[in-house]
Amino acid sequence: MNLILLFDDDFLAPPRVRLTGRRLHHVTAVHRAAPGDELVVGIANGRIGRGTITRLDDAALEMDVTLDRDPPPPLPLTLILALPRPKVLNRVIAGAASLGIKRIVLINAWRVEKSYWSSPRLSPENVLTQSILGLEQSRDTVLPSIETRRLFRPFVEDELPSVARGTCALVAHPHALQTCPRHLREPVTLVIGPEGGFIDVEIASLERAGFTSVSIGERILRVETAVAFLAARLF
Amino acid sequence: MNLILLFDDDFLAPPRVRLTGRRLHHVTAVHRAAPGDELVVGIANGRIGRGTITRLDDAALEMDVTLDRDPPPPLPLTLILALPRPKVLNRVIAGAASLGIKRIVLINAWRVEKSYWSSPRLSPENVLTQSILGLEQSRDTVLPSIETRRLFRPFVEDELPSVARGTCALVAHPHALQTCPRHLREPVTLVIGPEGGFIDVEIASLERAGFTSVSIGERILRVETAVAFLAARLF
Repeated sequence: MNLILLFDDDFLAPPRVRLTGRRLHHVTAVHRAAPGDELVVGIANGRIGRGTITRLDDAALEMDVTLDRDPPPPLPLTLILALPRPKVLNRVIAGAASLGIKRIVLINAWRVEKSYWSSPRLSPENVLTQSILGLEQSRDTVLPSIETRRLFRPFVEDELPSVARGTCALVAHPHALQTCPRHLREPVTLVIGPEGGFIDVEIASLERAGFTSVSIGERILRVETAVAFLAARLF
Repeated sequence: MNLILLFDDDFLAPPRVRLTGRRLHHVTAVHRAAPGDELVVGIANGRIGRGTITRLDDAALEMDVTLDRDPPPPLPLTLILALPRPKVLNRVIAGAASLGIKRIVLINAWRVEKSYWSSPRLSPENVLTQSILGLEQSRDTVLPSIETRRLFRPFVEDELPSVARGTCALVAHPHALQTCPRHLREPVTLVIGPEGGFIDVEIASLERAGFTSVSIGERILRVETAVAFLAARLF
């Protein structure tokens, strides 16, 4: 936790906040902070700054906060991701949030197992928690929007073209002939397939929707590795 | 497991191999393969190809293998990494192996907790297992060398300059003024610090050893995210 993310409810009265639960525990156990210490804080979807601890005991952490800087710029990347295995979903969301990705659409695909859609990890509460963990890691405050689309074809045919309008539209595909571009200066909409990849008709649908298949080489990366790799490669 | 990594001991007599244990279980439970099916295989530190299943039951998987291609090229990156928390060590090693990194030196630093050095995850057996998982993910066969150095100064002063000779020597450091370069055409020796970063005297030691501090921006990434991000950024 390199930044403590604050919400409006945390304010007793500005500039004082009171925190309990996970954030209190973390400041006590990991930061080992004491009254008078300063911590990096930020307000959800707002500015970042410092909090000076005025009280710290088993019951609560209180700080007076000053918010004087903007959060880091977002990554101009919309990520369309075949729903990963529940086991890796948390790491993928937290990782993407830490990289500054602000819109993630989790979609179905032929090789996405149906059972993944009933995972409790897809609950709005868990998805929000993972997003917060990613922002706290990278000192950002702007929560990503995370959406789900259970029907591949209607999404790709009816909705995706407008999502991708005005952006460089790419699908990462191991068998693509074209090499993934580097260091683009325009926003990107990036589609990443499931373990095992998209099937041919899915790639064809995406290409009809205006997407170009690109490859990052022979290596097949785990989804969380691929997201970080592509975030660096594209910008 | 996108490739089944074979070892000399697996051969009954070439071209026939017999597998039991984890690999047998994976082929049965995940690949759901049957006799006659072909699987992608590779021999440790050697070529890759295909295995045709000749027997598959609860006791063993037997295949006749043909090895006709070279593995993907290695990433020309030597990674010097402050020993991460045991909880993330497995993912970091498997991730680095999947990216094609062939030498990893795990080092001490002021902010590495002493207890990390006694983690069972640092055992040669576990480190080898994680490397294999990474290679199986990315269809590589060449095992990385993974070493440990418990004394920071002797390593940085006496050994690191010769490790880095002839390479671009960089240390990823959030406070660096210089931006991390992109798309280099030369080998790189990259140092990544612990959670919380290197302390100033450590950065000074690394700079005296010929390393340049570079930043990838304001965001502080988890180590496994940073390794993938930098692997893409540098090449």
